[in-house]
Amino acid sequence: MTDTPKSHGRLSISASLIPRDLMTPTPRLKGAWTAKIVTLFPDAFPGVLGESLTGKALQDGLWALETLDLRLFGEGRHRNVDDTPTGGGAGMVLRPDVVARALDEAAKGTNPDRARWPLVYLSPRGRRFSQAKARQWAGAEGLTMLCGRFEGVDQRVIDAYGIEEVSLGDFVLTGGEIAAQAMIDATVRLLPGVLGNQASTEEESFSDGLLEHPQFTRPNDWQGRAVPEVLLSGHHAKIAEWRREQAKALTRERRPDLWQAWAARHGEE
Amino acid sequence: MTDTPKSHGRLSISASLIPRDLMTPTPRLKGAWTAKIVTLFPDAFPGVLGESLTGKALQDGLWALETLDLRLFGEGRHRNVDDTPTGGGAGMVLRPDVVARALDEAAKGTNPDRARWPLVYLSPRGRRFSQAKARQWAGAEGLTMLCGRFEGVDQRVIDAYGIEEVSLGDFVLTGGEIAAQAMIDATVRLLPGVLGNQASTEEESFSDGLLEHPQFTRPNDWQGRAVPEVLLSGHHAKIAEWRREQAKALTRERRPDLWQAWAARHGEE
Repeated sequence: MTDTPKSHGRLSISASLIPRDLMTPTPRLKGAWTAKIVTLFPDAFPGVLGESLTGKALQDGLWALETLDLRLFGEGRHRNVDDTPTGGGAGMVLRPDVVARALDEAAKGTNPDRARWPLVYLSPRGRRFSQAKARQWAGAEGLTMLCGRFEGVDQRVIDAYGIEEVSLGDFVLTGGEIAAQAMIDATVRLLPGVLGNQASTEEESFSDGLLEHPQFTRPNDWQGRAVPEVLLSGHHAKIAEWRREQAKALTRERRPDLWQAWAARHGEE
Repeated sequence: MTDTPKSHGRLSISASLIPRDLMTPTPRLKGAWTAKIVTLFPDAFPGVLGESLTGKALQDGLWALETLDLRLFGEGRHRNVDDTPTGGGAGMVLRPDVVARALDEAAKGTNPDRARWPLVYLSPRGRRFSQAKARQWAGAEGLTMLCGRFEGVDQRVIDAYGIEEVSLGDFVLTGGEIAAQAMIDATVRLLPGVLGNQASTEEESFSDGLLEHPQFTRPNDWQGRAVPEVLLSGHHAKIAEWRREQAKALTRERRPDLWQAWAARHGEE
């Protein structure tokens, strides 16, 4: 965190017609992949994304992060953003007019082609996020994410804006912010230059449909447990084969769904 | 964030034999559900967990959060925590001896019964996190999470400590920190008293195996889009039936896997 925690990146701030209090003034490398986040908790960003590889890439301008505080688009003196569910029930629902105003603001300066700039609502009702989706998003110019809270968002604004609902998994979170950070992390690390060694993303889990093989490092002997002999052999083909077999066995045991798909593609069983 | 960002909670700090520089001195309500996080990025916590409902519950002592900085358990003057993969390959692997020292420290004061205090490594190779897992963890006394970075953790320490590998989903993150936060969020909101209205967790997605029905709120008419008539009828049974049908239709369309399981249980097709 720097002294100006909402200013992510080392580059100069670009001119913008957007008032400072409506959108975080973010330094932005021209053309850098950009995540715009509509949230009631802008202070939660960059959060973990400001650390480690994603944080360094943010500082280096390889990607940009902008938060829009949904509260500032609220109704009336109290800037209300939500109301009770029509028809009754627990919790509160985000108003369609408030969300629409925030999305209109976020849309400024973005490609209207949704394939180039996806518009996403984080929701357990959505289709599940996956490595394929991360790859797809990494190939776009950026994306806009709406983080829900409470019971959700009025369905009409989801329909009217053609928002894509994406789920982090089959569990319920208090809000979309963590889901947004997870998806951005998975996407940003696929952008060119973010990971030091490109090979890392090629060998890892899911890149070829198998879980990753077990890893070992020094010391070679730890509390009477030795690393597998083959890994010390220096025989690269044998090591590669051993790792492949381990990955297959692990996938077969833990993830029959992935294994079946992989085996069908490779003619094994 | 307060002036003492690592001290989460309003309660007095309990006496502890653990040196201050090894473990975050956390105020702790006796018996409160506790998450211990072994990480190279302790500053990333509480992150989003410090906001909103989970943040208020943390302040109220309904749960506690402790971070252990893995770096402090590193080897030698430079406190190295990782080394190259045995047998070659990209990236770095966390050393088994370093991880073991941190886990031994984290284990102090915790129930050795893993059903009461799970020990978890966040990894895409693990079994997938789910609402059922969140419920199971919420029923424990707490848990310890190891956040990986780089290419992973030496397999020997995973085996030796019987660590449960859990995955947030079929995608790869730069580290386990965001996954830890997501799982803690999903778990903490199920703890008694964290959500204002208990009904919220009963009606929502996955609680009965269906995705949640669409939600609406004011204004009743927005840009020519009216809320569904039935929701304004005041007829509670009809509203409940309409929502049920919507939830079923949505689940059938978006998540055939969930739908088949639900239909089998309920004798529908």
